[in-house]
Amino acid sequence: MTAEHKDRRPGDYPYHMSIPTRWGDNDMLGHLNNVIYYRFFEAVVVRFMMEVVGVDWTNDPLNPQAVETLCRFHRSLSFPDVVDACLRVEKVGRSSVTFDIALFGPGHDEPAATGHFVDVFVDNETDRSAPIPDDKRRIFLKYQAA
Amino acid sequence: MTAEHKDRRPGDYPYHMSIPTRWGDNDMLGHLNNVIYYRFFEAVVVRFMMEVVGVDWTNDPLNPQAVETLCRFHRSLSFPDVVDACLRVEKVGRSSVTFDIALFGPGHDEPAATGHFVDVFVDNETDRSAPIPDDKRRIFLKYQAA
Amino acid sequence: MTAEHKDRRPGDYPYHMSIPTRWGDNDMLGHLNNVIYYRFFEAVVVRFMMEVVGVDWTNDPLNPQAVETLCRFHRSLSFPDVVDACLRVEKVGRSSVTFDIALFGPGHDEPAATGHFVDVFVDNETDRSAPIPDDKRRIFLKYQAA
Amino acid sequence: MTAEHKDRRPGDYPYHMSIPTRWGDNDMLGHLNNVIYYRFFEAVVVRFMMEVVGVDWTNDPLNPQAVETLCRFHRSLSFPDVVDACLRVEKVGRSSVTFDIALFGPGHDEPAATGHFVDVFVDNETDRSAPIPDDKRRIFLKYQAA
Repeated sequence: MTAEHKDRRPGDYPYHMSIPTRWGDNDMLGHLNNVIYYRFFEAVVVRFMMEVVGVDWTNDPLNPQAVETLCRFHRSLSFPDVVDACLRVEKVGRSSVTFDIALFGPGHDEPAATGHFVDVFVDNETDRSAPIPDDKRRIFLKYQAA
Repeated sequence: MTAEHKDRRPGDYPYHMSIPTRWGDNDMLGHLNNVIYYRFFEAVVVRFMMEVVGVDWTNDPLNPQAVETLCRFHRSLSFPDVVDACLRVEKVGRSSVTFDIALFGPGHDEPAATGHFVDVFVDNETDRSAPIPDDKRRIFLKYQAA
Repeated sequence: MTAEHKDRRPGDYPYHMSIPTRWGDNDMLGHLNNVIYYRFFEAVVVRFMMEVVGVDWTNDPLNPQAVETLCRFHRSLSFPDVVDACLRVEKVGRSSVTFDIALFGPGHDEPAATGHFVDVFVDNETDRSAPIPDDKRRIFLKYQAA
Repeated sequence: MTAEHKDRRPGDYPYHMSIPTRWGDNDMLGHLNNVIYYRFFEAVVVRFMMEVVGVDWTNDPLNPQAVETLCRFHRSLSFPDVVDACLRVEKVGRSSVTFDIALFGPGHDEPAATGHFVDVFVDNETDRSAPIPDDKRRIFLKYQAA
């Protein structure tokens, strides 16, 4: 899956979020714990969904729910790094959207981690998947990799 | 405040909860991060509130909310310790209850940490403090230190 | 990848670990936050590595490091569930081992989540991958899916 | 203890750190979990120790260790708030330093939380408390409340 290759560069991604690490993010081995990478994946997806796509988890009738996430660990990150979390849209389906994500450490052009995050839009009442609303689909398509 | 002295022993506490640590609970210095101690304070208070006092956060008209917590760190805990989290009631006020809490590492009679956790009962509608319901008050009094 | 299908059952896994959830594991939507599933993946892998395989992160010359993790979310888990985290070995390479992991909620035969966790043995001095020691390889092979 | 009163204002503190909240910081009740407040206390103390006081946990012969922390919760914080974490020195002892800390939500002059964080300098070899080095003591005194 080319989307997760380590030849990704920051310039490949149209959406960026700067995330300061916290002391407790490091684990016993002195580097960011693997699980924390997913906190950063979640952070950039949630921020993109709220600020760019206009998702409102409290009031919308449909809500995106994660159905699959994956992370490949290429190099370590450590507190107090400020991480550049990057996102682009990999694929837009009927009810699902796949984000291609990368994390870069400060001053590095090569990713510390790459991966994906798949969200499915779910109807809050029926708890079943539902088509992505048109206005949101248009936004996803704009952020799709060329 | 004598409640937080390090001469506390497991037998001083009527309510106990066994909590396995997780790898990510350790921080860079190889011991449980200080913040995690509060996760364990919270765990034993929440479990006591649910199982013994019968608090139902989703449906009750009043809910306990933390207004003050304190922890004194006496000796370190580390993954993979299983921690004995202990609770007794220190004080019961009109709308507040103060828990005296201690954490013991495996095979230790002296506490790794002692502290307190003060909850106030709040009316969900008015968002103001309210008297502790009588049935709950009776339970708190039963778990009060002699 | 058949390893991650939701037709997995607890009996398909030779290694199990019981993990109590914590109040703070739930997120704003009232269910276990997606990131927490990886804490549980990590927990069962770390415990298996320590107790069965005999890995000693502090003293061994080689240490396993995660290079890829993946999780598929099938149904929600919530505090105060006690989760059955299950592991089997999917593949043993020269220096890498792939674990097939599943999480089951209490009283459920169908997995809440399935996924994998790939570890590579790395030489602490050179920071390069190294062959899995023979004694550890034999253990991995014993826990491999039939 | 006047240091923890809710009449504190941002201007009372000489050291500030801006901390973005993360989605997973909110708990089931839709607000920042109480435990997370201590992550922010830790963040501002660690940053102050590293950047202003010049503490180097890896190489210094003495290291500060938390011996007591306390937090009073006055009003709730929620993701996606950016929190203003504020610090001043309350007291400098022979080997201990007490920080007075406050957290402010965006656009609020009244603190969401106030509390303290007591660190003791410990000799890494003997594991016993040791006098604060003079250069560090001078810095603490400069940040002491008038």
